[in-house]
Amino acid sequence: MNTLTTLLEHRSIRKYKSDAIAQDIIDTILLAATRGANTGNMQLYSIIVTRDEEKKKKLWEYHFKQPMVLQAPLLLTFCADIHLFSQWCLQRKAVPGYDNFLWYTNACIDATIAAQNAVVAAEALGLGTCYLGTTTYMAEQIIDQLQLPKGVIPVTTLVIGYPDGMPPLTDRLPVEALVHMETYHQYTPEEIDSLFAEKEALPQTEKLIKENQVENLAQVFTEKRYKKTDNIHFSATFLETLRKQEFIRECLK
Amino acid sequence: MNTLTTLLEHRSIRKYKSDAIAQDIIDTILLAATRGANTGNMQLYSIIVTRDEEKKKKLWEYHFKQPMVLQAPLLLTFCADIHLFSQWCLQRKAVPGYDNFLWYTNACIDATIAAQNAVVAAEALGLGTCYLGTTTYMAEQIIDQLQLPKGVIPVTTLVIGYPDGMPPLTDRLPVEALVHMETYHQYTPEEIDSLFAEKEALPQTEKLIKENQVENLAQVFTEKRYKKTDNIHFSATFLETLRKQEFIRECLK
Repeated sequence: MNTLTTLLEHRSIRKYKSDAIAQDIIDTILLAATRGANTGNMQLYSIIVTRDEEKKKKLWEYHFKQPMVLQAPLLLTFCADIHLFSQWCLQRKAVPGYDNFLWYTNACIDATIAAQNAVVAAEALGLGTCYLGTTTYMAEQIIDQLQLPKGVIPVTTLVIGYPDGMPPLTDRLPVEALVHMETYHQYTPEEIDSLFAEKEALPQTEKLIKENQVENLAQVFTEKRYKKTDNIHFSATFLETLRKQEFIRECLK
Repeated sequence: MNTLTTLLEHRSIRKYKSDAIAQDIIDTILLAATRGANTGNMQLYSIIVTRDEEKKKKLWEYHFKQPMVLQAPLLLTFCADIHLFSQWCLQRKAVPGYDNFLWYTNACIDATIAAQNAVVAAEALGLGTCYLGTTTYMAEQIIDQLQLPKGVIPVTTLVIGYPDGMPPLTDRLPVEALVHMETYHQYTPEEIDSLFAEKEALPQTEKLIKENQVENLAQVFTEKRYKKTDNIHFSATFLETLRKQEFIRECLK
């Protein structure tokens, strides 16, 4: 498929057929992931492949039992990983110093570039994908399940499989909401109203507001989907897990 | 171009022609960036476009005066951004709670997915790209230069332009160094020797060791490129900048 078409036609898939994915297709996706740019060519990430049904079921529990995790035949957990590189350094009498916040960010970026390459490759091969944001919420449980050593932490997960139906393209904010010319433009309240107007006028927005019994779409996010109290809770647990993984030393609470 | 070819033929470009990039090509790259998956469709990122020569020169100074920054006609700075979404929430009597470590990670992932989509789109259109890891080192200066408000922090930058020559593909670790089946495999010292053997045997490795007057390739990284003392310094400054941007409240030092 044409590259730009692949990118512009992206949609996240949340319903999958149970069809298996051929080994050579999985291999191509993984190869594309590892060809991506990364920090200093140190490749500070790892990818855990889950296909075993029992193991997938454990991860499904951690990912808030979203049905698509059971439906799709393949899960890829992308981890920030300073373990392998640091082990290599130690073996070469070189002193690694990557167990800090800066290198958590670098490794997280490396892992995400690899994940997005996997998405683009999978979609070009007729597969569907969905990122699981629950990965950071449940990092500690996923670490135990996947037996991740110190210096490795999961940052995102991809569900991959053949789509059961093709949903319409998801709405996005207009490009001008996200792109700034030369310097950041701080939008006025009127401009913000205008940038969100299309999203707020969608038929599904009305439905969401009604279902959730709130006043507007913003409150669907802040009172239902991503509540402040939950955010603070999961933020603390993720930070604590990073500390336990000896990935970050600066943050002590 | 075929999508898989685009992905598998990726190389970072560090020498550029001064040829301008047509507006419609830039628009396509930005559109592809914003079509990427993101957390909860909240699109917690922003992209600052730099084309003005004087402004590019300021950023070149911050990016350690790498010549490619001056050569290429376009810089895109990708930022984790909770500002716009939070402003919208406040305007709708919804209480945002995204100024914490978890949402820094979510927004950093969103920004990186957008950046990698921009890379893939640019390469499909005959352009070359290079990520600048110096973005986090110099985040505070870049924030001032791009006038980023609280709730916005740069996480990576792309140099984009027409390549002046096409370098060979960069070496990568074998896929098995990065991919683990079902659970994480902790490599033995012998396995690590084997995984890094090809990289260590490259002609340019020998050259690097000689130029840097160290014993081996690992020491090029730990004693020259990414030294522990520098890492700790830049980690502290980046964390302090995140705190100043009111993006993260948990980490107080």
